[in-house]
Amino acid sequence: MITINEVKARLLQNDNIYILTHQHPDGDTLGSGFALCKALQKLGKKAKVIIDGDLTDKYKYLANGIIEQDFESNYVVSVDVADIKLLGENKDIFEGIIDMAIDHHISHKQFAKEYFVDSNAGANAQIIYRIIDKLGVEFDSDIANSIFTGICTDTGCFKYPNASPESFRIAAKMIESGADSASISREMFDTKSRQRVALECETLMNIEYFCNDKASMITITQELLNKTGANDDDIEGLSALPRQITGVKVGVMVRERKTSGYKVSVRTTGEYSASNICAMFDGGGHKAAGGCVIEGTLEETQKLIKKAVEDEILNN
Amino acid sequence: MITINEVKARLLQNDNIYILTHQHPDGDTLGSGFALCKALQKLGKKAKVIIDGDLTDKYKYLANGIIEQDFESNYVVSVDVADIKLLGENKDIFEGIIDMAIDHHISHKQFAKEYFVDSNAGANAQIIYRIIDKLGVEFDSDIANSIFTGICTDTGCFKYPNASPESFRIAAKMIESGADSASISREMFDTKSRQRVALECETLMNIEYFCNDKASMITITQELLNKTGANDDDIEGLSALPRQITGVKVGVMVRERKTSGYKVSVRTTGEYSASNICAMFDGGGHKAAGGCVIEGTLEETQKLIKKAVEDEILNN
Repeated sequence: MITINEVKARLLQNDNIYILTHQHPDGDTLGSGFALCKALQKLGKKAKVIIDGDLTDKYKYLANGIIEQDFESNYVVSVDVADIKLLGENKDIFEGIIDMAIDHHISHKQFAKEYFVDSNAGANAQIIYRIIDKLGVEFDSDIANSIFTGICTDTGCFKYPNASPESFRIAAKMIESGADSASISREMFDTKSRQRVALECETLMNIEYFCNDKASMITITQELLNKTGANDDDIEGLSALPRQITGVKVGVMVRERKTSGYKVSVRTTGEYSASNICAMFDGGGHKAAGGCVIEGTLEETQKLIKKAVEDEILNN
Repeated sequence: MITINEVKARLLQNDNIYILTHQHPDGDTLGSGFALCKALQKLGKKAKVIIDGDLTDKYKYLANGIIEQDFESNYVVSVDVADIKLLGENKDIFEGIIDMAIDHHISHKQFAKEYFVDSNAGANAQIIYRIIDKLGVEFDSDIANSIFTGICTDTGCFKYPNASPESFRIAAKMIESGADSASISREMFDTKSRQRVALECETLMNIEYFCNDKASMITITQELLNKTGANDDDIEGLSALPRQITGVKVGVMVRERKTSGYKVSVRTTGEYSASNICAMFDGGGHKAAGGCVIEGTLEETQKLIKKAVEDEILNN
């Protein structure tokens, strides 16, 4: 791994820089990318954020203040990309020519010529903050909005255990630099589409409690998605809901796949192991969150996953 | 108003201190009260938090580390109490003998002999932090949990405009002092009772959009509360939901009162004025949040408030 001073030196040495983000881009990879891009442009360099697909409406504001530039890169950096596979469509184009990976995933699989990884950073945007600070670039409101977005989205609005003192302190500085924190938070956390609201209600109205109410399960069928008009974005975060109910230790979401079988997501409060449960079906994860795929009818899938949850609860 | 050094001097001069919290206590008044109480006890003083009613299960952990002491006070402080009326049952007991009010409400109505009010503090707990810091008491994990709870609850999990750089910086320090921030945030923001979930679903399934979907309205009847088994706690925060839907500028919640008529809560994104709307029915509030009571049948109430919302939207 290189040092932050080496990261600084590499960026200062190069004048035409591409910044790669991961597929299905979230607030942290985009916030990291656009913050770094704006900082490099302020240093008089050419810089461009490369995204797999289009920038969705939700994150359009992150490109504010960025000058669109057409150029050939002589240096390629990836941000928040844990694995070359996660570049999606851009993997084939950039594989082998990525100069530096900046990442915060403990599972980072080395693919770049050099890398700077700090898994203690709650959000990758915190590392970008440190780099921009080192570069001596002033944090304007555009950069501040991007850094703040990265931190608040990756820490679940400062709720998850990865929200560290550094996360909070950088957030404070970004507000002082002009980040519109309240608007960003409202947009990211307090806004739901009508389809999402309908999907949430239909799903939760049919929630099933089992294991003496220590576990609960929701089910999303393709029929329900059609009925509510909900899309993939609307499903994001839904798997967290069954576990949020008072007394529930293990929450399960069963989701019908477009092809065949069911995708099962398991969330726990940490007393029981989601990865143990999912390992029964060749899935994996951590203690608090896991996933697997079960091939079978809906009835069979529900029966199998309920049995696995019951076993985990009874044996622990 | 007295200075923070005078606040410090008063607290050091007195050895038997009662701390008053406001009625229907929330995380900020309780977090402020218990943090100050623990700090005073660590200075060798007798101190006690006085609550209107019982400490609910949700906030029981705030009393951790507090020694229950039976004594007569020679000094009485109120925390986060904007008006003597808000002491509830304790008003009659303490009116006229409150020595100091520590508050952060811009609307603070003076009732104590001396007062220290800073309306720039997002949470009252931020002022308590400053006072404990001045007193030179070390922030242990109990105090840190209480201060963190006050800040995160009053700033809507750091989402509201009142979440200032100071809010974030004190939160960072409290985590370093041992606050279990992730557990507190999960308990405060990611936990819902089964009754709450049922109430939310039933309510949102029947949401009504009007004014070209710029406005939406939910209705809570006594019948629905009976059906879902939801209590007053379960209704908390529900008024924010209609406004959270994409495109909605004005969200309305109509709630049947136990006595007669309907309590109407209006929330806006700030483009239209909730207080204008509520003023039509002798209510009040701010631009983004207002309330009023309408006497009439449910049908009449809904018709009247919809008309008022339409007028506000059409005229602005």
